[in-house]
Amino acid sequence: MFLDIYDVIVVGGGHAGIEAASASSNMGSKTLLITTNFQTIGQMSCNPAIGGIAKGQIIREIDALGGNSGRISDYSTIQFRMLNKSKGPAMWSPRSQCDRKLFSYYWRFFLEKNYKLDLYQDTVSSLIIEQHKVKGVKTIFGLKIKGRSVILTNGTFLNGKIHIGRKKINGGRISEQETKGITEQLTKNFGFKSGRMKTGTSPRVDGRSLNYEKMKSQNGDIDPKKFSFFYKTKKLKQQRKCYITYTNQKVHDFIRSKFNQSPVYTGAIQGISPRYCPSIEEKISRFSDKKEHTIFVEPEGWNTVEVYVNGFSTSFSEKIQYQSLKQVSGFEKVKILKPGYAIEYDYFPPEQLKATLESKIIENLFFAGQINGTTGYEEAAAQGLMAGINVHLKIRKKEPFILKRSQAYIGVLIDDLVTKGTKEPYRMFTSRAEYRMLLRQDNADERLTPMGYNIGLISENKMRILDRKKSKIEKCMYLFQNKNFDPKTINPVLSAKKSPIIDHNKKIETILSRSEIDIQDITSIPFLIEEIKKNGFTHEILEQVFIRIKYKGYIDREKKNAKKLLKLENLKIPNNFDYKSIKSLSSEAKEKLNYYRPISLAQASRISGISPSDLSVLLIYMGR
Amino acid sequence: MFLDIYDVIVVGGGHAGIEAASASSNMGSKTLLITTNFQTIGQMSCNPAIGGIAKGQIIREIDALGGNSGRISDYSTIQFRMLNKSKGPAMWSPRSQCDRKLFSYYWRFFLEKNYKLDLYQDTVSSLIIEQHKVKGVKTIFGLKIKGRSVILTNGTFLNGKIHIGRKKINGGRISEQETKGITEQLTKNFGFKSGRMKTGTSPRVDGRSLNYEKMKSQNGDIDPKKFSFFYKTKKLKQQRKCYITYTNQKVHDFIRSKFNQSPVYTGAIQGISPRYCPSIEEKISRFSDKKEHTIFVEPEGWNTVEVYVNGFSTSFSEKIQYQSLKQVSGFEKVKILKPGYAIEYDYFPPEQLKATLESKIIENLFFAGQINGTTGYEEAAAQGLMAGINVHLKIRKKEPFILKRSQAYIGVLIDDLVTKGTKEPYRMFTSRAEYRMLLRQDNADERLTPMGYNIGLISENKMRILDRKKSKIEKCMYLFQNKNFDPKTINPVLSAKKSPIIDHNKKIETILSRSEIDIQDITSIPFLIEEIKKNGFTHEILEQVFIRIKYKGYIDREKKNAKKLLKLENLKIPNNFDYKSIKSLSSEAKEKLNYYRPISLAQASRISGISPSDLSVLLIYMGR
Repeated sequence: MFLDIYDVIVVGGGHAGIEAASASSNMGSKTLLITTNFQTIGQMSCNPAIGGIAKGQIIREIDALGGNSGRISDYSTIQFRMLNKSKGPAMWSPRSQCDRKLFSYYWRFFLEKNYKLDLYQDTVSSLIIEQHKVKGVKTIFGLKIKGRSVILTNGTFLNGKIHIGRKKINGGRISEQETKGITEQLTKNFGFKSGRMKTGTSPRVDGRSLNYEKMKSQNGDIDPKKFSFFYKTKKLKQQRKCYITYTNQKVHDFIRSKFNQSPVYTGAIQGISPRYCPSIEEKISRFSDKKEHTIFVEPEGWNTVEVYVNGFSTSFSEKIQYQSLKQVSGFEKVKILKPGYAIEYDYFPPEQLKATLESKIIENLFFAGQINGTTGYEEAAAQGLMAGINVHLKIRKKEPFILKRSQAYIGVLIDDLVTKGTKEPYRMFTSRAEYRMLLRQDNADERLTPMGYNIGLISENKMRILDRKKSKIEKCMYLFQNKNFDPKTINPVLSAKKSPIIDHNKKIETILSRSEIDIQDITSIPFLIEEIKKNGFTHEILEQVFIRIKYKGYIDREKKNAKKLLKLENLKIPNNFDYKSIKSLSSEAKEKLNYYRPISLAQASRISGISPSDLSVLLIYMGR
Repeated sequence: MFLDIYDVIVVGGGHAGIEAASASSNMGSKTLLITTNFQTIGQMSCNPAIGGIAKGQIIREIDALGGNSGRISDYSTIQFRMLNKSKGPAMWSPRSQCDRKLFSYYWRFFLEKNYKLDLYQDTVSSLIIEQHKVKGVKTIFGLKIKGRSVILTNGTFLNGKIHIGRKKINGGRISEQETKGITEQLTKNFGFKSGRMKTGTSPRVDGRSLNYEKMKSQNGDIDPKKFSFFYKTKKLKQQRKCYITYTNQKVHDFIRSKFNQSPVYTGAIQGISPRYCPSIEEKISRFSDKKEHTIFVEPEGWNTVEVYVNGFSTSFSEKIQYQSLKQVSGFEKVKILKPGYAIEYDYFPPEQLKATLESKIIENLFFAGQINGTTGYEEAAAQGLMAGINVHLKIRKKEPFILKRSQAYIGVLIDDLVTKGTKEPYRMFTSRAEYRMLLRQDNADERLTPMGYNIGLISENKMRILDRKKSKIEKCMYLFQNKNFDPKTINPVLSAKKSPIIDHNKKIETILSRSEIDIQDITSIPFLIEEIKKNGFTHEILEQVFIRIKYKGYIDREKKNAKKLLKLENLKIPNNFDYKSIKSLSSEAKEKLNYYRPISLAQASRISGISPSDLSVLLIYMGR
């Protein structure tokens, strides 16, 4: 401390910062995590849940690469649900309600287990930069800490301004001071572009004041799954219930009558809102024909009366929050514990970053999380992990670790950010991925764990777990592809499922690939029961085999397409490539390519305004 | 919420605020606890320990009256020691190292169990006052909350200013915003006096960086006791070790060479320091002949590497903190997690309060904790409890609940504060009590629980626990006072202890009252073992009997003195008594009596500058 020079200094202890610090230190870099407040390390600032559609996939990818968010969610889960189980496996999305305090507790606990990682509580107010290379940080108390690299994960803290009704106060979260200095330094001295974004959060209420009998209860899965592929946690013996209720016409009318008192509409808020996480006032204004909006009532932990009112994010005054909430069914006697609020903060448009999340302007300076214009714990954690990995590789002059769009949602996320930037808080959706049949939550380990192993973030032991799983799957596939059902055995099953009966032996695989046949239909057949038992094919293995057989067509098609694209991906463009000298490029293309500096032809193709003819020109220049 | 009018609004969620809110709501007042940050409810801002000399007694008194600090300490204890066990029982003082996170967690947990108590997160910036009566509070977001009474427990937050080296930033604690507005309103609009005090805290360091082999370990008691008289907690199976090390001449020389860089000496800090909790720079300056100062190395919890460096409070810059700490034996490779710092804050001199802790200026406005110029969790909690009790009694027009100096350390504390005020942060010591043989930690329940029962804060069940204990003690006393030892039985014991042998039967009591005879010496005698077993005399009961017999002389003498004083205490002075019209009073006495407005002759006698002749004059006017 103080005399040390760190390999990596991570600024911020939120979801991005902790994954970043954890990754770089686990890979062997001497890392310092510096944050304003130790109490809020791994704090879930908004709703107490991890995962969900596309986001659950990201958490499993983080786990598969050696990050911690997955297992810490597992340790903190108070309710688990696999969303979209009725749809195809590309859509299955794990989601867990977490105990807010436990989540933060376990993060701190695991960070402290790391001998390569130091923690320090202070607020960074500027960077030490020499000749466009970052050399360390300075804190508000004047302390200088030297580092070979810095990862900025400031979340909503840069010049944060909180709005409740007509009041605004400075702060990074309620009661926590905002951070000043970094935006000013980077924009004024180094020409960084910055912008303002806005996000919001819902009121927290006292669960004892709610009438749950007027709501629909939402239970956890009977057989709750986990995020982590590797760590075993005790099976949940009980889970906490969530509840669902709805707004109504009265609530809408009331809120509409108060629009003129919402900072979203009075012009007080300049920052851009997350389109997909609108406040209740924005929902009512934007979808004026909707008669109701869903509200999810989520407990904040095992042992607290605090409840999160998901779907009711707002920046109205406390009084209007209260007056509108109490018109919601079940909320008639609501007691608010903490009001919802909106917060504006600085972000740095992420097209200023390389695909490693390193700044194009300042060497060895990385950015991860909300500071890059994203929203969501999962998106932040993923960027943190990738920044942590790449910072370690960079200062050791190793090849960067960049995930392709066909390899991971994390690849899609970062490629979207650095290629196209974002004009509004960026959130992941399955629709953003071209290959979502490949990017499933169930196969994140097969996709990514060997890569994590290659870069040194995945242990031998984890690789063994994956290898065992893979060999079991292969064995089971072999069985299904080679063993037959005879008509006598299988026809009763087929009839029952209204599937054509067979008149001679057929491979198990053939039967299973019929759309009306489910894995459960055949695993009750006596000789298969025995085989499954003998070979130790778990539910997880059978599910994998089922997906491979059932969705073979889709998977193969996406693999083929991905391969095609891979060729373009492999056509790298040198970083100093002189676009301006190529006369046959359109002037728009010249400008944009020069600005975004894509690393491959594939990335160039995704920049809006780059036409197929521009690509052909580039292809020629790349020697193809 | 919002539409409710509360009986009591407690501002602040520290040790004073939570005991206050807990007391008033448990007594039946509809209470709101409003605090800036729910995460810091029950936060131990300084060292992670509860109790100690005189302070441990206070915690047991709080427990005996129905407060929570005792049992919550028990639930969070990671190491327990009864201090001063080698001295007389007046000095025995329980102290427990606590898990900082658990302590805060349990407070929140128990507060939430209370249906009369609402919680709300916001920052109070002013009071609603009408005709010198408080009517509610206003928050920084403009929210008005109505209440029939308000308890202010703002701790170090009122215009808090943090110093580290030459840097100063505003804040109530590191990274937490200070509170503005209340001091300004009360002083400017209502003529309150306010002052500035200063306190400090030590750096927190990474336990993994310390060399414990160079320190002395300090273990918990083999038979750890509890604070609570009523709640059973599981016996600690293991305890965490603390360590002791020392500063040395090199450290002192170094620090002395840096005096000109400490805000304590540069004049940057105006507030008055706690005399009995000096910073390391103050210790070295004030006790320049001391060759070393003790440092207690205290773990912060069961599962954290964070360690508190007790005895090294400082406001030097981080660099000097580091450079001096690493010269301490065992700290050669120290890594600091959080620097120490000094904080200045507003307090309201407590002679402006009645003995109920209600303001003399604004009706139904109470003050408790550090805002009254005290230091220490225990002192704060005690005031919170008493303010919570008295606010409830006041708004119901019931008799106030005031503890006498002969009844409790809490009585001494509040009497000292309101009678004499305090010029420096006030800390409790056994030496402040006139009757410390009466105010023991072991008999706090006998002293206070019946009073707690009378005011409605102690349950029937707790009273039963006390009654059972009392009847056991009496039974055991009876046995010891009536049963004899015969020479044959007891002489071997006496010889072994070099105590004169006896030649005819003597009462057990007589033998036990010999100074060289300990309770263990006689409880191994077969017929007594049997009696003890048969009657279920626990260790606690035997200890009580032992103390009563052994220290009978001292106890009786103090009881007699206390009774004498009680007469003076009972001579109440009317609140509107016109001192100025009494010619025979000295002019100093007139002025001081008029200012302090003592409630009794006893209290008047403790005001400095009030002479015996002034008292005689008053005695005459009181009709004696």
